[in-house]
Amino acid sequence: MVRRTVDVSRPVLERNESLADANRRRFRAAGLFVVNVLSSPGSGKTALLERTLADLSADLPCGVVVGDLATDNDARRLTAGGGRAVQITTGDVCHLDAAMVAQAVDRLGTEGLRVLFIENVGNLVCPGSYDLGEGARAVLLSVTEGEDKPLKYPAMFKSADVVIVTKTDIAGAVGYDRAAALANIQGVAPQAAVMELSARTGAGVSAWYDYLRTGSGARGPDDAR
Amino acid sequence: MVRRTVDVSRPVLERNESLADANRRRFRAAGLFVVNVLSSPGSGKTALLERTLADLSADLPCGVVVGDLATDNDARRLTAGGGRAVQITTGDVCHLDAAMVAQAVDRLGTEGLRVLFIENVGNLVCPGSYDLGEGARAVLLSVTEGEDKPLKYPAMFKSADVVIVTKTDIAGAVGYDRAAALANIQGVAPQAAVMELSARTGAGVSAWYDYLRTGSGARGPDDAR
Repeated sequence: MVRRTVDVSRPVLERNESLADANRRRFRAAGLFVVNVLSSPGSGKTALLERTLADLSADLPCGVVVGDLATDNDARRLTAGGGRAVQITTGDVCHLDAAMVAQAVDRLGTEGLRVLFIENVGNLVCPGSYDLGEGARAVLLSVTEGEDKPLKYPAMFKSADVVIVTKTDIAGAVGYDRAAALANIQGVAPQAAVMELSARTGAGVSAWYDYLRTGSGARGPDDAR
Repeated sequence: MVRRTVDVSRPVLERNESLADANRRRFRAAGLFVVNVLSSPGSGKTALLERTLADLSADLPCGVVVGDLATDNDARRLTAGGGRAVQITTGDVCHLDAAMVAQAVDRLGTEGLRVLFIENVGNLVCPGSYDLGEGARAVLLSVTEGEDKPLKYPAMFKSADVVIVTKTDIAGAVGYDRAAALANIQGVAPQAAVMELSARTGAGVSAWYDYLRTGSGARGPDDAR
């Protein structure tokens, strides 16, 4: 079954690759740092972006394209604080693809933005196969999910530029084993920067903001790469 | 994109349906109550099954077929307490299908079992489309994931026979809004029985055990249906 499924989806993935390349050229031309934000459902993607937009937008204007199967809850949450956000509802599709993102960016507009977040459908498997033209991938793992998730969903974590451990404020309540989680992340995704933060309390968010400023070139051309 | 993706997968789903029907006949002939257990990664499927096997197996022998992309961690956790479990590793496939389950049940054997759990890949989207021949679907939602998940992943919740809210022992720590969550479950999945429990403390597990005893006919033929 494994092999057949891969064969069926290959033409879809090839078409997606060329559309992702077009997105990438467009984002580069617009001077946008684009971050594909991925995780399980409920790991805190929207909560982190709410806080990020509130804290950063004055200095580093950010927009969001957000995907869900149904509801525009997340776009409403993100725009409630004055942020720019556009919702994609995928229906029964388990991931965003480059074409969906291109259409959403047409609606959002890129004028004035420095950072664009693409909040993917909550899913640790399928969205990993779809390049959206992003400059970086951030994979979130909440302290509630179990320390072995990088081992169980290795392809997603291997594709990450940054792994963000979220909800650290409740680590004690859930019996989170920090050493085991960090060892598993390091083992599967040695290429990734690792951050630990709580969007609720703000602990640890400054490293994430530094990452975004550097990625967007807001630190100046010398250390933008 | 939505329509094409559906078209591509239709032959796969049709083939799966006929294999699922064969599984269902086999399970019925073996007198097995089969429960497909579905949720996001990290909602507590394995923890609930660990406790269930420990508490019930003497009276109601249970086996588990468990799916993950990688690792046999879950089968090892489940067999550590003396349970019968077989691991399926799917590689890059985001769901279990009926053929994978049939092969795993060949390895597990059904002699002496009354209940078979199929712990699916952690994913609130794709596994919902694949009938495995189960008698019931249990969809788990942990208190940490956000009360709007039934609205965002409606197809999965609409297919549930029972929705189980897990990790209730940390509801206070994560600011869980019980009324909102239950209203969303009821709104999307009015057909489902709803249970709230903590596999860690054991609070609420008796309703789940009653459900399994009834489903398996262990309460006698009068109230088995």
